[in-house]
Amino acid sequence: MSTVTTTATLLHLDASPRGARSQSRRLGEQFLAEWRAAHPAGRVITHDIGREPPPFLTEAWVEGAFAPAAEQSPAARDAIAVSNRYVDELLAADQLVITTPIHNLSFPAALKAWIDQIVRVGRTFAMGAAGFDGLAKGKRALIIVSSGSDFRPGTPGGAYNFLEPYLRAVLGFIGITDVQFVYAHSLNAGNPAGPAALAEAQTTVTQLARAA
Amino acid sequence: MSTVTTTATLLHLDASPRGARSQSRRLGEQFLAEWRAAHPAGRVITHDIGREPPPFLTEAWVEGAFAPAAEQSPAARDAIAVSNRYVDELLAADQLVITTPIHNLSFPAALKAWIDQIVRVGRTFAMGAAGFDGLAKGKRALIIVSSGSDFRPGTPGGAYNFLEPYLRAVLGFIGITDVQFVYAHSLNAGNPAGPAALAEAQTTVTQLARAA
Repeated sequence: MSTVTTTATLLHLDASPRGARSQSRRLGEQFLAEWRAAHPAGRVITHDIGREPPPFLTEAWVEGAFAPAAEQSPAARDAIAVSNRYVDELLAADQLVITTPIHNLSFPAALKAWIDQIVRVGRTFAMGAAGFDGLAKGKRALIIVSSGSDFRPGTPGGAYNFLEPYLRAVLGFIGITDVQFVYAHSLNAGNPAGPAALAEAQTTVTQLARAA
Repeated sequence: MSTVTTTATLLHLDASPRGARSQSRRLGEQFLAEWRAAHPAGRVITHDIGREPPPFLTEAWVEGAFAPAAEQSPAARDAIAVSNRYVDELLAADQLVITTPIHNLSFPAALKAWIDQIVRVGRTFAMGAAGFDGLAKGKRALIIVSSGSDFRPGTPGGAYNFLEPYLRAVLGFIGITDVQFVYAHSLNAGNPAGPAALAEAQTTVTQLARAA
């Protein structure tokens, strides 16, 4: 394995509500172990949003995001301070790694709660005369997805994959356009395609961590 | 207005985190007022999920949904009891009305939290040799959407509407295929199309409530 000295910063979000039984969680841990080995000076921030989800948006949050700072209530300042921490971490990262299961044809609600915290006018996107412009440019994103069925684009189940098109759109909206997906699919008990799909995902995750 | 005596049950979910300033919330209130007038014997259940969101899924929830009842931990029983209440309400309803803003090209996380609570094997869908089958059949759904821009299908912004395709798919998965969308669009301050769009949505909502 090649070892590159770097001060790269990686932000890792784990959206699974499950612990050791989560395949996406284990794949994320594998990615991080390989990435740390390849980037001994690198910095990793992990948020276990599956088990400690970001807060849902509130009316105070909306006030904090849109009202002038001097006019904000204490509740608005508190709500937006939480959002600011998520935004600061994202903006400081060179790479974003999200590990997530597919729940009901998309990702768990906790990941949408994170998205709702980090899509912010003036922080992660700008609104000007020429339209919208993403402010979180120059980052790469890797989305490691585990699922009971096969939802890979191009397969019959791909028509029911509402995770990838949406994540590409909303990450693109804030300027993150270099987005790669890895699917550990067909993991339902008894699915004969599962073991090979998991092994392939493990190999890909290792390669990506070393090349990152 | 025609008045029909009926014992219809309507389940209303309001996904906006905002109070009186929410246009979707106000349109929902208008729909309910008209519906109640047209259905004096009808029953309405409202969940303000925008301000009191359903819990995120947890590992205990997964245990409660999939492990045999006799083997479940107290935490699993508690988690799935919450889900059962949401499911029971949905199954008892003849009509589902969801009012929601568009946040970041889709609906707020709170609505996904509700979806994750109500999509349940053996309760709202069945899994058999012939594939999946929705168990929440025979209901109508109305989705009242408010948004700052125009995300209606068929418009340029429709390509960024990740709310309607997903809701159609996941509601269809549990057997709800009669789904209608009303868009109060272009509501950003200063958008010249906003007032007419809002007026049209108000008219449509009134007509639908009376015809429901």
